[in-house]
Amino acid sequence: MGSKNNASYNDQAHFSELGRRIEAPPIAWLMEQKLKHPDLISLAAGFTDSPSLPVKEVQTIFAKITKSNKRAMECLQYGVGAGRDQLRQQTAEQVAGLDVSAPEGPCYKPDRVIITHGSQQFLYLLTEALCDENDIVLVEAPSYFVYLGILQSFDTKTRSVPMDSDGMNLESLKKTLEELRQSGEIRKVKMLYLVSYFQNPTGISTSLEKKKAILRLVKSYEKHAGHPIYILEDAAYRELKFPDTPETPSMLTLPGARQRVIYSGTYSKSFATGIRIGFALLPSPLRTVVMRIKGNHDFGTANLLQSILEEALDSGLYQSHLNRLQSRYQSKARHMQKCIQRSFPDEIEWAGPAGGLYFWAKAPKNISTGPRSPLFKKALKERVMYVPGVYTYAKDLNTHDCDNAMRISFGNASLEDIRQGIERLGSALNAQCSRKK
Amino acid sequence: MGSKNNASYNDQAHFSELGRRIEAPPIAWLMEQKLKHPDLISLAAGFTDSPSLPVKEVQTIFAKITKSNKRAMECLQYGVGAGRDQLRQQTAEQVAGLDVSAPEGPCYKPDRVIITHGSQQFLYLLTEALCDENDIVLVEAPSYFVYLGILQSFDTKTRSVPMDSDGMNLESLKKTLEELRQSGEIRKVKMLYLVSYFQNPTGISTSLEKKKAILRLVKSYEKHAGHPIYILEDAAYRELKFPDTPETPSMLTLPGARQRVIYSGTYSKSFATGIRIGFALLPSPLRTVVMRIKGNHDFGTANLLQSILEEALDSGLYQSHLNRLQSRYQSKARHMQKCIQRSFPDEIEWAGPAGGLYFWAKAPKNISTGPRSPLFKKALKERVMYVPGVYTYAKDLNTHDCDNAMRISFGNASLEDIRQGIERLGSALNAQCSRKK
Repeated sequence: MGSKNNASYNDQAHFSELGRRIEAPPIAWLMEQKLKHPDLISLAAGFTDSPSLPVKEVQTIFAKITKSNKRAMECLQYGVGAGRDQLRQQTAEQVAGLDVSAPEGPCYKPDRVIITHGSQQFLYLLTEALCDENDIVLVEAPSYFVYLGILQSFDTKTRSVPMDSDGMNLESLKKTLEELRQSGEIRKVKMLYLVSYFQNPTGISTSLEKKKAILRLVKSYEKHAGHPIYILEDAAYRELKFPDTPETPSMLTLPGARQRVIYSGTYSKSFATGIRIGFALLPSPLRTVVMRIKGNHDFGTANLLQSILEEALDSGLYQSHLNRLQSRYQSKARHMQKCIQRSFPDEIEWAGPAGGLYFWAKAPKNISTGPRSPLFKKALKERVMYVPGVYTYAKDLNTHDCDNAMRISFGNASLEDIRQGIERLGSALNAQCSRKK
Repeated sequence: MGSKNNASYNDQAHFSELGRRIEAPPIAWLMEQKLKHPDLISLAAGFTDSPSLPVKEVQTIFAKITKSNKRAMECLQYGVGAGRDQLRQQTAEQVAGLDVSAPEGPCYKPDRVIITHGSQQFLYLLTEALCDENDIVLVEAPSYFVYLGILQSFDTKTRSVPMDSDGMNLESLKKTLEELRQSGEIRKVKMLYLVSYFQNPTGISTSLEKKKAILRLVKSYEKHAGHPIYILEDAAYRELKFPDTPETPSMLTLPGARQRVIYSGTYSKSFATGIRIGFALLPSPLRTVVMRIKGNHDFGTANLLQSILEEALDSGLYQSHLNRLQSRYQSKARHMQKCIQRSFPDEIEWAGPAGGLYFWAKAPKNISTGPRSPLFKKALKERVMYVPGVYTYAKDLNTHDCDNAMRISFGNASLEDIRQGIERLGSALNAQCSRKK
């Protein structure tokens, strides 16, 4: 029974296929770098702004929800798998409100809502419900890298569609669908995944026109697929729009959305990331299965967290906090933009976002931004870190074609860290650009 | 795009294998009955005792952890996948304390701990990491029905081993392993699952002698399996022992446990089920993979909940609450026992538990307790509900052989509801027993 005996087994060979297949997340490696270099300024983390976390609000809310013993006991007891009735009702209204639709619209019914332990959990549950190995999900190029990791772990394949400044390039989407139809693989296509607001990593939002065109186009291939092709609209960053940015309706507002569009969102980023509450609105047969799987994961998101959100929404503290947060992120983004203008060489392409947490910058094609690139090493030496763009592209692409971008976050860094961080990154970029001239 | 077009697709055919396979949980059906009959006394729910939920304690804790702005912000921000350092340290010490082992023992190191969204999440993650379809998990007969549901959803097979009053019957376990060796299926055996303290549903605890024998026996088949066969010791009810019950060491105390025993536990049942914090201690290669999968589920359990538990453990409020809770459940169990003695016919076999939340009662073989049985219907008519035993047996068994038991919970019901509920159940049982004579 000693370690000799144990050592005779290959460590991983007896794990499940998923267990053997799943890769270390890029984020783990980035966090290691941060631990190795504690004086590093991380513009990599997708963390939210700490000083603006709603401490006072949560204190007020907590006092309120535990004032009556009956309500307090409810918060501390098990709940039900779908989530608390009131929070589902509020969530349906919240999304309908953003969409300026009547909450009684068919897409915004509380019985289409599920509450999850962060919206990440929903992405997982849904993918479990729909996707087997070798099934296909259409994704934006680039896309949210943790979602790409989920697909990789399930051995579900991707088809990447490049993006314009207002969302997926329709010609490319059409070409991809057409190729899939011709090869017969269209039968394997289960879903199109869209991070439609201030996308992680690019900051790009999908316009309503594009949403319409995408839904129409995908629908037109269903007869070839022989089954529904869903669109997962991941609206995680929707409420982090800057105050000046106009609201874009979600795909739920479109005709034919009810049976095809799955909308996911979160209260974590817009309120407090330590209170992990996500949600989704989705068609009924799929919701039933997602709820069954969630019953096996955890039979319901922690009631205390749900109760806090209910009261936050009900009291107006959620909205007042959000208003402040939107202004705060806007000013941080403007600050970062000024710093970038001052420090980045002209060769770097970038655009300021209208919401969310990220800038996306592209170096010339001949400058790699990858984790082993001279640029990344130089940046570490300058004590600054970004997310290498290559992490955000799915594996169906040639790495070489997506190795020159960076995600730079203003979410968690202080104004001073943004200033210094961008200055340091500017030095690293200037050094690399001048070397390549 | 209308409903006509949608209706032309079979609702489920395009789901994943898991999505098509997963069954509605029995608990959903039981909850439906409760909704249909609001005046029903449910002795079915595994909910914990509401009046003893730690409302005052959580208020004190919350005030403390949000007093300093720095600490409050930490609670409300993202954390790390493995769980908070302090909580992992405390958890290692807590389990070592129950085992009366030095926390520096090799099994009780914080870097073997993972914090999860309830221990249910851990059961899921571990099974994802280890089990494919047609792999085999050895289970107790009966066993925890939600875990059996997880295995069913993965198409992982079970081999049921009957129980004695001190845990698995060793002769049967040996016979099962031997059969598996002879058929070659031993290579498919990944794990033995043991609910070792006040088991759900039987209330049985596994003795230390049995634990030793089980570990030794399973180990001896590893050479045939060609890989480790893990033992998952689910200790969810361990801390709900009655004050008079002596502590039984876990399998972590046994030689050779470090690489083979996976220990899972929870703070939810012992503190507050609305604060869902579970944990596990497990060997390192497996933990790495479980953490990767958790990164895809939710990248870390809500920091606020973890912080509450940290403070509860640190301040002693956890332990003082638990002491009261243990006494409370003991008195509820004694009350239920008296009621059962008064109301149940002699033909019903049952034994009082020494901890946990459940009584397990067996009717004569010719009286079915199943959800469609005359007894269950009669009980509903009398406005009382129990968990039919058949739900708690894995599918490798013949339903007929496990159709005469009931799980009866004293967890959530009030003393008065226990009295009335058992009286009503007694009437139903008496009616059935006298009819069958």
